[in-house]
Amino acid sequence: MGMIQRPRGTRDFLPDEMEKRRYYEAALRNVAKTFGFREVATPIFEEAELFTLKSGSNVLEELYVFKDKGNREIALRPEMTAPTIRMFVNEMSSELRPIKVFYFGQCFRYERPQSGRYREFFQFGAELIGSLDAESDAEVIAMASSMIKAFGLKNYRIRIGHIGILKQKVIDAGVPEECVVRVLQKLDKKLYDEARLLLLEMNISEEKIRDIFEFTETVGGVDVLSYVSGKTGDYLRRVSDLLLAMGVENIMIDLGVVRGLDYYTGIVFEVEAPTLGAEKQVCGGGSYTLSELFGGERVFSTGFAVGFDRAIIAAEKEGQVYEKKGVKVYVLPTSKDMQVYASRVVAKLRVANIASDIEIMGRKVSKAMRYAAAIGAEYTVIVGAKEAQQDSVMLRNMVSGEQKVVEVNNLVEEIQ
Amino acid sequence: MGMIQRPRGTRDFLPDEMEKRRYYEAALRNVAKTFGFREVATPIFEEAELFTLKSGSNVLEELYVFKDKGNREIALRPEMTAPTIRMFVNEMSSELRPIKVFYFGQCFRYERPQSGRYREFFQFGAELIGSLDAESDAEVIAMASSMIKAFGLKNYRIRIGHIGILKQKVIDAGVPEECVVRVLQKLDKKLYDEARLLLLEMNISEEKIRDIFEFTETVGGVDVLSYVSGKTGDYLRRVSDLLLAMGVENIMIDLGVVRGLDYYTGIVFEVEAPTLGAEKQVCGGGSYTLSELFGGERVFSTGFAVGFDRAIIAAEKEGQVYEKKGVKVYVLPTSKDMQVYASRVVAKLRVANIASDIEIMGRKVSKAMRYAAAIGAEYTVIVGAKEAQQDSVMLRNMVSGEQKVVEVNNLVEEIQ
Repeated sequence: MGMIQRPRGTRDFLPDEMEKRRYYEAALRNVAKTFGFREVATPIFEEAELFTLKSGSNVLEELYVFKDKGNREIALRPEMTAPTIRMFVNEMSSELRPIKVFYFGQCFRYERPQSGRYREFFQFGAELIGSLDAESDAEVIAMASSMIKAFGLKNYRIRIGHIGILKQKVIDAGVPEECVVRVLQKLDKKLYDEARLLLLEMNISEEKIRDIFEFTETVGGVDVLSYVSGKTGDYLRRVSDLLLAMGVENIMIDLGVVRGLDYYTGIVFEVEAPTLGAEKQVCGGGSYTLSELFGGERVFSTGFAVGFDRAIIAAEKEGQVYEKKGVKVYVLPTSKDMQVYASRVVAKLRVANIASDIEIMGRKVSKAMRYAAAIGAEYTVIVGAKEAQQDSVMLRNMVSGEQKVVEVNNLVEEIQ
Repeated sequence: MGMIQRPRGTRDFLPDEMEKRRYYEAALRNVAKTFGFREVATPIFEEAELFTLKSGSNVLEELYVFKDKGNREIALRPEMTAPTIRMFVNEMSSELRPIKVFYFGQCFRYERPQSGRYREFFQFGAELIGSLDAESDAEVIAMASSMIKAFGLKNYRIRIGHIGILKQKVIDAGVPEECVVRVLQKLDKKLYDEARLLLLEMNISEEKIRDIFEFTETVGGVDVLSYVSGKTGDYLRRVSDLLLAMGVENIMIDLGVVRGLDYYTGIVFEVEAPTLGAEKQVCGGGSYTLSELFGGERVFSTGFAVGFDRAIIAAEKEGQVYEKKGVKVYVLPTSKDMQVYASRVVAKLRVANIASDIEIMGRKVSKAMRYAAAIGAEYTVIVGAKEAQQDSVMLRNMVSGEQKVVEVNNLVEEIQ
């Protein structure tokens, strides 16, 4: 019989990997808390309609969908913004604004697995709900920036744009409202040939098309904002002033960023880690409204999600090393007769919150010592009959090789 | 249009609830680490076969099942022991033994939702793989006990039994091997009438039936073990000696515990919290073999899972209160002109790891103060033009009402 394998596109996380992931997760959670955001959680699956309302019915192709016992169409979540806003509409709409929440968990994408893209992947995201101004956008972008720093990343760029500018440019050129999204999607992907065909079909002149294309290439430091006139220009200048005040670095203005999604209403931003090559985006977000689609009042929000898996890869490409913490102490009875006494010793260490393991397989001292070294124990506590008679044990420092007899009552103190 | 609701039998966790859950999760993770266990994670879904191999095909009725793009039958995991052992077979089988791992996450059960039973629920569990003796069983039960204590529970019982004793008793009475599981299942559920009918069908005498029933009622302190003869009696006495040495309390011996599952091979145990009434089990486990079913070599393991949701309810029934931690500081610019300066101040606090929020909705001081009080801020930092000219802010203690002018450079020190 063959082995049962895990499903394609999924991963198992073994202890070393998992310890590293929990370390980064805790670092991000800490950043969110220092920014006054609080954690929420929603179910792994939702009614499929939640996601089609947000992203259109073609999103179904990428969803894991199945029927509920009540014959409802249920989907594993592909992202967590829609569920969070659904939760806000259902249960948090009467709370004081702004509402600042974050979340961490698995999302699912039903596509052919590729390198670095998994069917089950992890997002760490946040939503600031109920506020629409430069201050809230800056708050959210500043937090995204702090999270990227929490991964230890140094080589990254925060590209900031505004959906309104390009949208207005396209409308001003004569594109009918109902076609704007299609054009923006092509521009977002830099598919200029396809965009040109589309625009020519709409009878937009070559000159205006060139003008639009040039505009999407307006990229640079915050100084390029001096070329952007009108309210949106003022708005972006305000955001950039606030970000600089908060010490946010590596900001670029990129008026071509539209993030290919039609529900954004204002600012849009992406964080790129160039070390990752083609798949370099580690974070994306912007301001949007969704709640009215789910049966609530219309409420403005700004949010983002960090691609947790990809950000870890970027950190490692920059040479970040996470050092695992093994157990501190290995307790080693010299014979089965000493096991009960050794159990008492290990319990003492554990109550004192010292990570301690105990030999439970009845191995001889030399073999057990090799195991203790392999799991990275800093100390071994050898429990033999002679020492036990004096309520003592032999404490061995696994690094220096030193060993000495220590009274059990002094053991915790000796090790801490 | 109606609101979109979350699917039946699932929950949203709002910030207060989530903070409490993360607190308990961290406490359990800490216990696992002090016992030398390390965390692993497996996918949310697995091939359905993994679970039918473990529990038989009737488990399908309670599984969320769907077809993969490769037309494989995939199921949301109903528990995490099978996935962990599958991972062990695939990826950890050559590691040094014993392998001590733990996990925390969602599981899914496709049944009619009832009070306190959810379709999406959370388990915290552990497996000690590759060792079979009283020492490893004691290690696992001691950890389960420490986890129950980490919830703050005082009113609980650890019922310990051994599948081998009752199995032998039933076989000795004349029940054919292939019918043993069916009989044990009835006995586990205390369905004596149904068990009697079944046993009579197998031509077991009334006297022997009474004898079996009496045996399953052998319950009491560790002293009842003095009535249990043979190797299994010795084994249980050894486990109980080790548990007492490790300071484990509230142990009961219950020879009727069989946990209704046919894959257990030796010790079985359950932790009950009587405050919960009928649904009182908060933890269950035992020793088993599974790896050979999944294509690996036969390896003995002992494991358990804590019903995370139910244990929290039990803790609350005992009067445990988790106090939430709000943000520490609310930074409040007195006008829009002060926003950039205030942003600089809040960034300073956050870099110093002080949880700080900032007014971003342009509210007047009195209104913003009410918001700061509502989110539980300990301090407000009022940023006005006069103080800003002297690189200072007004620091207000929200509890005492005291306020004073503080230089920005001294602010972190003043608050910590």
